Amino acid sequence: MAQKPGKFITFEGGEGAGKSTNILVAQEYLESQGIKTQLTREPGGTPLAEEIRSLLISKREESVNELTELLLVFSARAQHLNNLIKPALAQGIWVLCDRFTDATYAYQGAGRGLSVEAIRTLETLVQGNIRPDLTLLLDLDIEVGATRARNRGALDRFESLDAEFFSRVRDMYLQRAKSESYYKVVDANQSLENVQLAVKNTLIEFIREVS
Amino acid sequence: MAQKPGKFITFEGGEGAGKSTNILVAQEYLESQGIKTQLTREPGGTPLAEEIRSLLISKREESVNELTELLLVFSARAQHLNNLIKPALAQGIWVLCDRFTDATYAYQGAGRGLSVEAIRTLETLVQGNIRPDLTLLLDLDIEVGATRARNRGALDRFESLDAEFFSRVRDMYLQRAKSESYYKVVDANQSLENVQLAVKNTLIEFIREVS
Repeated sequence: MAQKPGKFITFEGGEGAGKSTNILVAQEYLESQGIKTQLTREPGGTPLAEEIRSLLISKREESVNELTELLLVFSARAQHLNNLIKPALAQGIWVLCDRFTDATYAYQGAGRGLSVEAIRTLETLVQGNIRPDLTLLLDLDIEVGATRARNRGALDRFESLDAEFFSRVRDMYLQRAKSESYYKVVDANQSLENVQLAVKNTLIEFIREVS
Repeated sequence: MAQKPGKFITFEGGEGAGKSTNILVAQEYLESQGIKTQLTREPGGTPLAEEIRSLLISKREESVNELTELLLVFSARAQHLNNLIKPALAQGIWVLCDRFTDATYAYQGAGRGLSVEAIRTLETLVQGNIRPDLTLLLDLDIEVGATRARNRGALDRFESLDAEFFSRVRDMYLQRAKSESYYKVVDANQSLENVQLAVKNTLIEFIREVS
């Protein structure tokens, strides 16, 4: 009998939304249901893709062209998709990924103002018709997110940006949540306990749908 | 009076064709005619683009997906074009570049068998309508080139490939030399002295045309 392919679940949301914690909560729940999982992140997920991530997040004197950044993001994605995500799904493993292409639309597209058409061109080139089976958008108010992020300590290049930027990012996520059927929005303004409960309930519902 | 823009000259050709020597010959000649020049190379040409080059040429355990490689090449190109080539041309400097997009068609396209359509999509995305003003193709027989390259010593990942690969690369260059009006073919099977003379004569003719 052919192996039933795994599901591709991505976690999206602004700074301080609790992606890192909740992806672990999701993994623990899925494993408790006998589902094999693989945790990964973007940009990154393979040694070469992580090297590309380092290029992206390191501070440098040279100004980084926006298209350079976008192409680096998608080069890491092509590597991640072909060397980790696709092989895992083919083995029936569920892939839990911290950010994916929706983050590119939000951060590079809405945030930095790069052409959404360029992103769509690269998405088609790299992914064909591969999209997440489920995207958990942890949505929270900009102010709450910024405070939580600042409390965590040092900000990297991606995080040391202004409130207007994060507002554009959030709006793009919410816009895509309406247009893309694989989105489920979780209100991340709630207490961490309630957010975790909402994440778990979303997974219970998803498992029921795909069983 | 507005600055007259510089010219964008690229040097292409297989292994052992003498690009490195002849680009210096070209620079010396142009400078002797009072033309300011900037020597550069692909992939590379800026600090970040050189870091991307290092990722591309380093040997690694992980298999590199062909699309990852192509996107890395174009990310370096976007950086090079916007941070070095365009600013230099705008200042009236002639840019002499060791390989450019024609090498992508030849090596990634014909050599590795990547979709020419994908290359064309990325070329349009990154370059718009920017093309070289002149491409000097140093063309020589595969056998002669391979022998010259071997005599130089260690081969990197791009060079440790087989004769059929180099044959496909050469054919693509020759095919593009027929279809792209900016190509001039120099027979690199000749003695180094005669190749240098041919390069110089091509430049004399080019300067006459654009003056």
